Amino acid sequence: MHGYTSDKDDYLKRLRRIEGQVRGIARMVDEDTYCIDVLTQIAAVTKALQAVSIGLVEDHLGHCVVDAARRSPEEGDAKVREAADAIARLVRS
Amino acid sequence: MHGYTSDKDDYLKRLRRIEGQVRGIARMVDEDTYCIDVLTQIAAVTKALQAVSIGLVEDHLGHCVVDAARRSPEEGDAKVREAADAIARLVRS
Amino acid sequence: MHGYTSDKDDYLKRLRRIEGQVRGIARMVDEDTYCIDVLTQIAAVTKALQAVSIGLVEDHLGHCVVDAARRSPEEGDAKVREAADAIARLVRS
Amino acid sequence: MHGYTSDKDDYLKRLRRIEGQVRGIARMVDEDTYCIDVLTQIAAVTKALQAVSIGLVEDHLGHCVVDAARRSPEEGDAKVREAADAIARLVRS
Repeated sequence: MHGYTSDKDDYLKRLRRIEGQVRGIARMVDEDTYCIDVLTQIAAVTKALQAVSIGLVEDHLGHCVVDAARRSPEEGDAKVREAADAIARLVRS
Repeated sequence: MHGYTSDKDDYLKRLRRIEGQVRGIARMVDEDTYCIDVLTQIAAVTKALQAVSIGLVEDHLGHCVVDAARRSPEEGDAKVREAADAIARLVRS
Repeated sequence: MHGYTSDKDDYLKRLRRIEGQVRGIARMVDEDTYCIDVLTQIAAVTKALQAVSIGLVEDHLGHCVVDAARRSPEEGDAKVREAADAIARLVRS
Repeated sequence: MHGYTSDKDDYLKRLRRIEGQVRGIARMVDEDTYCIDVLTQIAAVTKALQAVSIGLVEDHLGHCVVDAARRSPEEGDAKVREAADAIARLVRS
């Protein structure tokens, strides 16, 4: 049971859509679509993935991190540090 | 015939792998994998998509843009502007 | 008194250094430095700013957000949402 | 003489403004401004730096890269590769 469990169906729906978009990009490349149009489509998929990430981060902070902090300062600090590392990877990706 | 045509098989292979990775992320969510591990995997897919984009940009500059510039300054300028807009979308995504 | 207060001197030192780097970039442009070298330097400054942001996010989560969550679930939720919005702006910038 | 030379004054003006914004962020930290407001301001500066980068890339492509490609395919290829590397650093920063 994690932060995102209550929104699981929504996340699954968004990820299926993203999977379909990636398949669509492969089809564009296969059909020699103009490079700029392929790039535009990749930027759209990247944005959709980032939106999923940001949603997961919010759910994670609101459940796992906050719950840990309520249990003990040490557990809270560990979860905050772990979350900050994940956010750093997100910002740099 | 576009900039990326000679590398088409390589791009298709990378996009198929990315499609599989997105399907893997959906499976992780479906199996209630820990949020941070899902985030790490999304960051990996985003990086892989960006690498595809950067490859496409390089192929595009080296073929479509350079060829246009050799035909006429006007065509070159138009292609440069179009490429810069695509790069801007990439940087902001 | 905020999350970053205990590291204030460190943040100020890093921001002064970034300010100096931006001044250095202006000087590079003024002296007609090769575009690619200017771009490399801007990428370095952007990374330094992102590192400051990620530090501030971690401090903010570890103090303001966690403290609010300990006071009440409602305050915690509000702070989590606000932090997630700030993280979204960071990821998209 | 580089791609950006004709817009030099505009770039210098934007960089001076960015330098002032970074100084403003240091002042915010020094005055214990709320973390989220500091983060918003850093995101604004990062966006402004990215806009400068994208402008420099466009000028670079339209002058240095296109000119090199007109001189010889080899010089063009080298400049395209160099520009693509700079764009990659930009996308990842």
